[in-house]
Amino acid sequence: MTEVKKNYEDLEALFKPRSIAVLGVSENKYKIGYLQVKALLDGKFTGDIYPIHPSASEIAGLTCYPTLQDVPYDIDLVIFCVSANRVEAGIEACVEKKVKAAIIFAAGFSETSKEGIELQTRLTEVARENGIRIVGPNCVGLVNVSNGLIGTFSPAILTVPTDGQKGVGYVSQSGAFGVLTYMAAAQNGVSFNYFVSTGNEMESEFSDFAEYMIHDPNTNIISGYLEGAKNPEKLKSLAKEALDRNKPIIIMKTGRSTAGSRAAVSHTGSLAGSDKIYDAFFKQAGIVRADDYEDIISFSKLFQKDKLPTGKNTVIITSSGGRGINEADRCEAYGLNIIPLSSKTTSEIKRNVPSFASVSNPIDLTAAASVTNPELFLAPLKALVEDPEVDNIVFTEFSHSWTAESPLLQEFIKICNCSDKYVCITTFTLDGMSYPPATEELVINGIAVVPSHLNPIRGLSKLVEYGQYYRENQKNNETTDVESDKKYDVESLLTPGATLSEAQASEVLERYQIPTTTRMIAKTAEEAVEYANNIGYPVVLKVDSPDIPHKSEADAIRLNLTNDAEVKQAFHQIIANASHYKQNASINGVSIQEMLADGVEIIIGAHNDAVFGPVVMVGLGGIFVEIYKDISFRVAPILRKDALEMIDELKGKDILKGARGKAALDVDAIVDVLLKVSALVTDYKDSIEELDINPLIVYENGVKAADAMLVVKNKTDLIATIRG
Amino acid sequence: MTEVKKNYEDLEALFKPRSIAVLGVSENKYKIGYLQVKALLDGKFTGDIYPIHPSASEIAGLTCYPTLQDVPYDIDLVIFCVSANRVEAGIEACVEKKVKAAIIFAAGFSETSKEGIELQTRLTEVARENGIRIVGPNCVGLVNVSNGLIGTFSPAILTVPTDGQKGVGYVSQSGAFGVLTYMAAAQNGVSFNYFVSTGNEMESEFSDFAEYMIHDPNTNIISGYLEGAKNPEKLKSLAKEALDRNKPIIIMKTGRSTAGSRAAVSHTGSLAGSDKIYDAFFKQAGIVRADDYEDIISFSKLFQKDKLPTGKNTVIITSSGGRGINEADRCEAYGLNIIPLSSKTTSEIKRNVPSFASVSNPIDLTAAASVTNPELFLAPLKALVEDPEVDNIVFTEFSHSWTAESPLLQEFIKICNCSDKYVCITTFTLDGMSYPPATEELVINGIAVVPSHLNPIRGLSKLVEYGQYYRENQKNNETTDVESDKKYDVESLLTPGATLSEAQASEVLERYQIPTTTRMIAKTAEEAVEYANNIGYPVVLKVDSPDIPHKSEADAIRLNLTNDAEVKQAFHQIIANASHYKQNASINGVSIQEMLADGVEIIIGAHNDAVFGPVVMVGLGGIFVEIYKDISFRVAPILRKDALEMIDELKGKDILKGARGKAALDVDAIVDVLLKVSALVTDYKDSIEELDINPLIVYENGVKAADAMLVVKNKTDLIATIRG
Repeated sequence: MTEVKKNYEDLEALFKPRSIAVLGVSENKYKIGYLQVKALLDGKFTGDIYPIHPSASEIAGLTCYPTLQDVPYDIDLVIFCVSANRVEAGIEACVEKKVKAAIIFAAGFSETSKEGIELQTRLTEVARENGIRIVGPNCVGLVNVSNGLIGTFSPAILTVPTDGQKGVGYVSQSGAFGVLTYMAAAQNGVSFNYFVSTGNEMESEFSDFAEYMIHDPNTNIISGYLEGAKNPEKLKSLAKEALDRNKPIIIMKTGRSTAGSRAAVSHTGSLAGSDKIYDAFFKQAGIVRADDYEDIISFSKLFQKDKLPTGKNTVIITSSGGRGINEADRCEAYGLNIIPLSSKTTSEIKRNVPSFASVSNPIDLTAAASVTNPELFLAPLKALVEDPEVDNIVFTEFSHSWTAESPLLQEFIKICNCSDKYVCITTFTLDGMSYPPATEELVINGIAVVPSHLNPIRGLSKLVEYGQYYRENQKNNETTDVESDKKYDVESLLTPGATLSEAQASEVLERYQIPTTTRMIAKTAEEAVEYANNIGYPVVLKVDSPDIPHKSEADAIRLNLTNDAEVKQAFHQIIANASHYKQNASINGVSIQEMLADGVEIIIGAHNDAVFGPVVMVGLGGIFVEIYKDISFRVAPILRKDALEMIDELKGKDILKGARGKAALDVDAIVDVLLKVSALVTDYKDSIEELDINPLIVYENGVKAADAMLVVKNKTDLIATIRG
Repeated sequence: MTEVKKNYEDLEALFKPRSIAVLGVSENKYKIGYLQVKALLDGKFTGDIYPIHPSASEIAGLTCYPTLQDVPYDIDLVIFCVSANRVEAGIEACVEKKVKAAIIFAAGFSETSKEGIELQTRLTEVARENGIRIVGPNCVGLVNVSNGLIGTFSPAILTVPTDGQKGVGYVSQSGAFGVLTYMAAAQNGVSFNYFVSTGNEMESEFSDFAEYMIHDPNTNIISGYLEGAKNPEKLKSLAKEALDRNKPIIIMKTGRSTAGSRAAVSHTGSLAGSDKIYDAFFKQAGIVRADDYEDIISFSKLFQKDKLPTGKNTVIITSSGGRGINEADRCEAYGLNIIPLSSKTTSEIKRNVPSFASVSNPIDLTAAASVTNPELFLAPLKALVEDPEVDNIVFTEFSHSWTAESPLLQEFIKICNCSDKYVCITTFTLDGMSYPPATEELVINGIAVVPSHLNPIRGLSKLVEYGQYYRENQKNNETTDVESDKKYDVESLLTPGATLSEAQASEVLERYQIPTTTRMIAKTAEEAVEYANNIGYPVVLKVDSPDIPHKSEADAIRLNLTNDAEVKQAFHQIIANASHYKQNASINGVSIQEMLADGVEIIIGAHNDAVFGPVVMVGLGGIFVEIYKDISFRVAPILRKDALEMIDELKGKDILKGARGKAALDVDAIVDVLLKVSALVTDYKDSIEELDINPLIVYENGVKAADAMLVVKNKTDLIATIRG
């Protein structure tokens, strides 16, 4: 397949065509060919429209042409309102006419049959060779509200208001859900400036459209609905560009419940659900993950380019105790901190509010504030903007008597704008009562008003997350050496299709400078005793076999042996148990190892994800890894900050800090192993399928890999990797 | 304080008065005294209304009377529109006039000052002596939509529709939030038949009103907003009555984020946040906990008295792939199972839908179903009602072409009604498009239609939970012997104010037949050696001191000692370390104990909660208890089923099942200890403050308490308990 370097500027012909031809136009007012022309007219498209119809001379007041070639003008965009079997001829006509872009609605391509896949592949070739940018097929099209390009037959798009907040682009891998979100956003005051339903992503895919929007001066937020990323690497580098420009990317990724069905030998493989990897990827890339479609709307309303939340510390100001507690509960549920107020702030507020007000967090000014004494809203605000502990100030109600001109409102706005505190208003949703009269004035001045049905607190927590990404990106210049050559040569150890024994896997680790135990492989009981004496008592004996990755299950491991007799006996037992556990298992011998001192057990692993390639994992606590799934992932290669974040995400991280007066453990050494594992699985991403270091024992000084396993891809996997 | 047995039937005078007098009526149309009279008139109150005004002869067209005594008729209810300082005289007038009930709006009582508390206490005495039932003070009043009793000055109550679903009562500990919820419910099609804002709960409290509603034939669901339960025991017995009548109680309990600030010595005490205890209490009582106010509305819409969900297995039928995946994600987030379809069901559906439909779960019929071929909705329904694995069938969209008379709709309804499957429709919220035209017909026939902004999937998961409570209550006749005498005498061991040493605490456990280790207290190294030989090697040595509850922290514990020399050395070290750790610690000696075999470590504990009294806890995993907080609570006394549920709630419960081919552990023995601990802390609830058995070691057969601590209340606590 011809690989063409895509240029986002070419998408201009899709989003801002000077002229559009519509293929498959019909005189029947219920056919999409008619609906599409009507939508362009109703949307007041600012360019020329050429309906293509074999015989009609005029449709909906527009001059028709029998074919594309008959149009005497240049055509930028062709909208295909024809069925799948007529698309190929249409694309050929586009080539001849030097059309720059096309929207194809028809289903019946790669999603249906082998023939459909072949057709789609052929069309993609033709499009790429001729530089035609395509949305679809199997999609509902594209909208640009600024030029009236309603490039979709879906009449519902035109029923919603278009006077809401602009500057939010939206890319959707679901047509219907995309349209629903578009409409819901519009009804709630956010009019997406671009809407794209990507369909089968034949020629252009999700990240191509995101790239266009990132470079579009009128787009401030890039949002989307994603079922699966086709090009995560591109998405990641785009996300970095977006952060550099302070343009948040917020994506609703669905399919959380899709269980990883791939059979896996390692713990890492079995613990990695694709959803967790997406979570990790989004964090690494600095992409905000929307939990549901409301988050896109509330985030868009809350985002202020020049004032991002500085942290999670949140104070709630309410005029109803119940509303305040409710909102505080939501804050804690979504990871914001409801901080106790300092005594200075408390006394400052108390001096300026009546005694019946409750001055803790939430600050309850009682109904007086919203009914008779709106000036009460100002007193706590004045004190809170002076409090260095406070990041966010949330009003759950607002005065309904203040209008744009009210001096008190203007004072309120002035206080907000002279402060770096993030201030917003989250109202209770009631028909006709959700927005206070001063809403427009507040919004113009950068103070969002978001009613409860849009889940504003969850939206705020997403904004806080974005603020962290933004600041992190500003200060962080760490990069990975992605294109590094293979740092150490382990090629000869990676037999295709093999599951390496502990000894073999440990050798791979050693070459990457990861500390492992001292060990020797004994073939006989006598060798075992000799090696045990060489290593020094106490020792551990384990079967060494690529066919027995889970040695405890086979009862083929003996710990803390202190003399020759015990070693001899253990050797025989292990050989017997291993053979009994798996007949015909290939047994290299028994590994004699130093008995490691007690430490905290963690697991470090990696596996090759179908979408993201090599992925690194860290988990805590021996047998508890499987029970509590206290694990964290990142897509390799990782940075030092990623490794630190991975450890920080562990629920049980406090164990590493040294509980009950014990000394802290060597977190640097864990980070070091994570970075080395990341380098290893990145260098050998075409060979390594799965890797477990389990346990890695962590001490006050240093770590040691007490056991390891490694699965090498087999040849067919390798070929699949190259093809994919 | 006079304790009067309250009779819910007396509340009839509050909810269904034949006549109402309004105190503090004003001619000023902005005063609440006027607003209240107007609200009764606008609400079309069906009884008589007597405004009380010192001079006016008529207000709002009603005859006024100078005082209550001047009213020549009986008065059932008096509504106080006067300030706090005029309430006492008003109550005295009520007594004289033999008034049966009162609503008091005024603030300025127990919530403000010592004087307020005293005033409230006096008024409560008078009310109880004279059988006057009271709502408030410090509340927004009471509404009964069936007789037009708008017993509140809040004019907003009258602005919402009253034609929605009836049969839902609502009791609120927050006035403003209660009114907001009342209005939101009404705007979303649920008109609460009763609304009570309980205020300071001076004479009647939350559960009194709930009791009235449970016995009201027109109320099917009792809902509420709770900040703190005053009478949890009553609420629990009411909940049982409600379950017997199949009337769900659904309560939104806020204040999840309130950290337990009480200092605690035991792990159990420090791990018990009041919110977790509320969770446990609700489960024990069979009360559904609403996460937010939408849950009350969606639950009310979803509840069908004669068809409860039979389980969590849910199938989604959609006409938009994106919507289907989104709803499936929500199901898994809220604990419902998106089950794979059986091959029989799959092939049955496939025979009846076009090939482009996706027949997995979610079943995606594509836009064809909602646009051109609504009959497609029937095919999967027919197959799913025959599938014994399926409990719930959720349609995310519905035909907009079917009306009440459509034969296909009637067939749809018939299939639903002939099946025990729970069927509902959850639509996407868009203005004017959330409800399909056939909604009314569907709802009449027991098929709820709930749009997405009411979070219907969370509501459904709450309904599934209620179904479990209901079935459990039907089959379960287990009761606890709550009033049991003290089963075993441990009185002499419970020194007020003491923290018992391990040996002392273990003796308490032993008397309650809880297995503990064999142990003897040695005062000298020689005794230690002697006892070790009596018990048999290996042994454990631990300091025995009430002043050193955390022995590892003091390094005053030695495990696995195998000979006399080790014991002697350990004895001296322990004494030295303990004395060094805490100077002047009272040391009883060193406890010599059998060294227990390895097993799974759990913790069982109890503490005395300020609201609920004794509470029992179980947790998993030695040091991991604190890290992962994998714990479960129940209010004592517990039933066997509660103990089993507690264990079942542990995330790591699989460890007890015997991982990796190991034999299952003795869960019965854990249950047995939980029941004995429950009996102990119930019997001695006036003495025992905290109890930890940590660890309790669990084996294939039996359990053993390896360590224990117990904190006894001191005298002042005891007095507080008696007073409280």
